[in-house]
Amino acid sequence: MKSLLIIAHGSRRQASNDEIRELADRVRQQPGQPFSDVSVAFLELASPGIDEALTCCVERGFTDITVLPYFLAAGRHVVEDIPAQLQQFQARHPQLTLQATEHFGASALLPPTILNVATAASES
Amino acid sequence: MKSLLIIAHGSRRQASNDEIRELADRVRQQPGQPFSDVSVAFLELASPGIDEALTCCVERGFTDITVLPYFLAAGRHVVEDIPAQLQQFQARHPQLTLQATEHFGASALLPPTILNVATAASES
Repeated sequence: MKSLLIIAHGSRRQASNDEIRELADRVRQQPGQPFSDVSVAFLELASPGIDEALTCCVERGFTDITVLPYFLAAGRHVVEDIPAQLQQFQARHPQLTLQATEHFGASALLPPTILNVATAASES
Repeated sequence: MKSLLIIAHGSRRQASNDEIRELADRVRQQPGQPFSDVSVAFLELASPGIDEALTCCVERGFTDITVLPYFLAAGRHVVEDIPAQLQQFQARHPQLTLQATEHFGASALLPPTILNVATAASES
């Protein structure tokens, strides 16, 4: 059973956290997507945290978790904090297949996506 | 002459700011993209700021500027700070066509893009 966990920064503004939760819902609803579940964790300021979300995935029977750091730039959170938490969890759950994607902003898909967003606005 | 200005938060970590600048370079290099230039501004912690970047665009002869708030969630920066700065600039440059896209995280293109990033990692 494969699960996707989107890790966002988290905000004091609940509407921002809800925006991320709704985004995960839309990812889950993409036609033909291969994950049995798509959920969200927050690095700070909101719940669930990373450890709590991963524990929940394991308790629900997921054995293969893909983690996507939903950050635009590779700051300390991406380079140090998230990998450290994932390593600690992996050490406690050696049977789990736990892998992280590059942070979202590093994807080669982003330049054409940015251009599509900008062009749609420019032509409207 | 149309210009695209990508507004990022800005970081104390120069590598993060450089990552955004390199992203703008990659957007500029997309085949067939309609903007005569693609540049970056930072809300805080890095240069150029929004006003400085917009002034630079105007001085270089751009009369039509599309601004893309490169943020994943609609926090205070997206809802208040950036619109306020854009309004002030527009008031001082009434002849300028200045329009902002929705913030990047609100784009309907993001759920399939997130899924593509996650799936590529999951299958590798």
